[in-house]
Amino acid sequence: MQFPSPVSAQWLSEFINAKIEGNADAMATGINEIHRVQKGDIVFVDHPKYYDKCINSEATFIIINQSYKVPEGKTLLVCDEPFEAYQKITKHFRPFSPSMEMISTSASIHETAVIMPNVYIGNNVKIGEDAVIHPNVTIYDNVTIGKHVEIHSGTVIGGDAFYYNTKKNRDVWYKKMHTCGEVLIEDYVEIGANCTIDRGVSAVTKIGQGTKIDNLVQIGHDVIVGKNCLFASQVGIAGGCTIGDGVTMWGQVGISKTLNIGDNVMVMGKSGVATDLKAGNTYFGSPAIDFTAKRREYVMLKRLPEIWEAVRKIQSTDGGR
Amino acid sequence: MQFPSPVSAQWLSEFINAKIEGNADAMATGINEIHRVQKGDIVFVDHPKYYDKCINSEATFIIINQSYKVPEGKTLLVCDEPFEAYQKITKHFRPFSPSMEMISTSASIHETAVIMPNVYIGNNVKIGEDAVIHPNVTIYDNVTIGKHVEIHSGTVIGGDAFYYNTKKNRDVWYKKMHTCGEVLIEDYVEIGANCTIDRGVSAVTKIGQGTKIDNLVQIGHDVIVGKNCLFASQVGIAGGCTIGDGVTMWGQVGISKTLNIGDNVMVMGKSGVATDLKAGNTYFGSPAIDFTAKRREYVMLKRLPEIWEAVRKIQSTDGGR
Amino acid sequence: MQFPSPVSAQWLSEFINAKIEGNADAMATGINEIHRVQKGDIVFVDHPKYYDKCINSEATFIIINQSYKVPEGKTLLVCDEPFEAYQKITKHFRPFSPSMEMISTSASIHETAVIMPNVYIGNNVKIGEDAVIHPNVTIYDNVTIGKHVEIHSGTVIGGDAFYYNTKKNRDVWYKKMHTCGEVLIEDYVEIGANCTIDRGVSAVTKIGQGTKIDNLVQIGHDVIVGKNCLFASQVGIAGGCTIGDGVTMWGQVGISKTLNIGDNVMVMGKSGVATDLKAGNTYFGSPAIDFTAKRREYVMLKRLPEIWEAVRKIQSTDGGR
Repeated sequence: MQFPSPVSAQWLSEFINAKIEGNADAMATGINEIHRVQKGDIVFVDHPKYYDKCINSEATFIIINQSYKVPEGKTLLVCDEPFEAYQKITKHFRPFSPSMEMISTSASIHETAVIMPNVYIGNNVKIGEDAVIHPNVTIYDNVTIGKHVEIHSGTVIGGDAFYYNTKKNRDVWYKKMHTCGEVLIEDYVEIGANCTIDRGVSAVTKIGQGTKIDNLVQIGHDVIVGKNCLFASQVGIAGGCTIGDGVTMWGQVGISKTLNIGDNVMVMGKSGVATDLKAGNTYFGSPAIDFTAKRREYVMLKRLPEIWEAVRKIQSTDGGR
Repeated sequence: MQFPSPVSAQWLSEFINAKIEGNADAMATGINEIHRVQKGDIVFVDHPKYYDKCINSEATFIIINQSYKVPEGKTLLVCDEPFEAYQKITKHFRPFSPSMEMISTSASIHETAVIMPNVYIGNNVKIGEDAVIHPNVTIYDNVTIGKHVEIHSGTVIGGDAFYYNTKKNRDVWYKKMHTCGEVLIEDYVEIGANCTIDRGVSAVTKIGQGTKIDNLVQIGHDVIVGKNCLFASQVGIAGGCTIGDGVTMWGQVGISKTLNIGDNVMVMGKSGVATDLKAGNTYFGSPAIDFTAKRREYVMLKRLPEIWEAVRKIQSTDGGR
Repeated sequence: MQFPSPVSAQWLSEFINAKIEGNADAMATGINEIHRVQKGDIVFVDHPKYYDKCINSEATFIIINQSYKVPEGKTLLVCDEPFEAYQKITKHFRPFSPSMEMISTSASIHETAVIMPNVYIGNNVKIGEDAVIHPNVTIYDNVTIGKHVEIHSGTVIGGDAFYYNTKKNRDVWYKKMHTCGEVLIEDYVEIGANCTIDRGVSAVTKIGQGTKIDNLVQIGHDVIVGKNCLFASQVGIAGGCTIGDGVTMWGQVGISKTLNIGDNVMVMGKSGVATDLKAGNTYFGSPAIDFTAKRREYVMLKRLPEIWEAVRKIQSTDGGR
């Protein structure tokens, strides 16, 4: 999330009750999570395991729960509860303020767009030329929809990220990180019925131009999908993945979180992807591997009874020696 | 389902036109299906294969389609069509009487709860303090939602059980059992968008305190989910399962019906679970087995080409002897 | 799609600016896609690979992008862009003309049907006796629903086919084929919550009498489902499949496009079906094979460590010879 205007280290330190270490004159332009952080952004970290990753990221500000060596030009904000500080900042700049109208007066909808009955459109939503939104669609706040986009019934765009702060020594283990990100649906995208596309935790979930999505597909928070992708029904893409251009996923494919899928990859139906995939190749299986390798694996599997017989025969022959 | 007040064996025998065997003075306090039956309950059975299971269950009353030996203190109600008797009793005490208002006047909603536009709330629904119900959610009758619960758009809570009386010698094979159960969502639960949580056939479907559920998740009828579970997107849990506390299921996991999943189990993405799972362990695959065992299986699979070559070489050497 | 009345070759050739080859006096009664085409229908083809299949199909008219030999009694309509011609014809006879009312005045709903709040019903929808449509259901245009049908909340019936004309040398690779088909839900069908059933591209998607469908199920365009089938939650059936009578699919099963599944087939949970399945058998796995064969495969897999040890032992013995 970008702030409406830059915020001083001083204001921040007072707002979250933190001690400044490093550059006390820096200005923060936004706040973000570690996978999508940019220069000028704030991140937070509360586990020593991730200190170095956060401090050496593009982030300019790091909210952290102890003193630490500060690289040149960076600012540490040291406080007891970095997670709570993150929540306070994001809720301050982008509070959950539910619009109780079916179509928020703050939404901006092109006059040629077709909004069918019973569509809910939240705050600060933009809908472009010739877009068609079918009945019973829900669009949460801060979603931008391009030109010639079609969204089918029952689909939910911009829901909260499934992203929690976890501590197993308290009564309620999971505390949700306040979602303050956005969704961007580019031109000529089509989205089927009863899909769910979550908005970024603090960055943006993006569906690239010309991508076509079938029914019941899940796109997690902060996923970046390239142009001209084709996702068949019941595909699920976990949070933080980056999908290239021209990627095809057949029905019921699942992609684990924060993976990179190269351009023009094809993933066969029902595959479960647990690793990055190289551009231009075809994959199958759970866990998914190269399609040709997977086929060879099946051939071998079919030979197993023969192998078993051969081994038993050799053993009995040997035994007779 | 519990009756509003206890019902006599006499009244029951007349209502469903059945003959009493055993204790004619017993009072029935409710009706239930075999997996969830309690003392005082009625169950029904119409296949000799299940006679003993039903008669030896906790049930006090058994509706049955022939005379049978009665254990002490139990009551048999003998009639031609036990299934139809079950339907008649459940429809009598909990008829389908659709509320045609968007929010039923019989619903009880805490004044601090946020009910966004286009939410349907059925009869006898209770919604607790600080709960947030996003647009286009549907809540069927007899659902109780705790404090600080959040339910995202498009989700359907309390739909009918997918539970049929099957006879393949008639025109329509499947006759639905009338669903008369309930749903209980405890405090601090979050449920994502476009999920479906069915109510119990005659007992309760329960989501334990602090459990977090992602988008497009299916929870079948009569499932009991413990506290602090985490279910990622597109997980499906079939009817009658009991899930412990602190269980994590990653994306697209499926659990077969009436299984027991122990506390703190983790099920890796895309696994299909066909057996009970032991507390504290991690599982993977379809059918899912212990994660370490599954990994060993993969290692062996990778060695297959080598094994194949070795066997062929040994065979040709042997052949040369 | 059938035309309201037959259309002459002459009118067609002028409307899409095509040259007639073959029978110039023929009348077209409808337009269809290749998997469902019937006598009297128009099909289109723009790739030499499919010329013969289309010309030798049941189609009477073939819109094609070059001159070709014409079988007796058939009519070729030769034009530069057959896909655009298809779009022009289908949009002319069945334009997308969104009804902006919650229940279209052109819908025909039996007086005994129960339509609960917030249901959207499009143009030319028919709903039969005693049908119950739960809240927040969306029914697109040209859907016919039989008697005693129950449709649960959030389900979307009649959405557009996921069917594209693909050319990778343009900016937007995928252009959607205009969907002009229909949906037919026969008597005694029950459909769970948040399902999606697409209408045919130009033919009909049909759910046979007495079939019961659980929550979150996807049925693609032009699928024909037989009578008395049972589909558990999260099943997905891709476009153009033909499913026999009495077929059972357990949770999360996926069926690839245009396959034939025989009568009384059972597919175990989480299977991925990539081939036709023979009547009466049980299948499991991804790709799904005969259940008994799959079980034997598992037994062999479990013996792999033993085989590995045996091979190593034989090798070391041989090495000692």
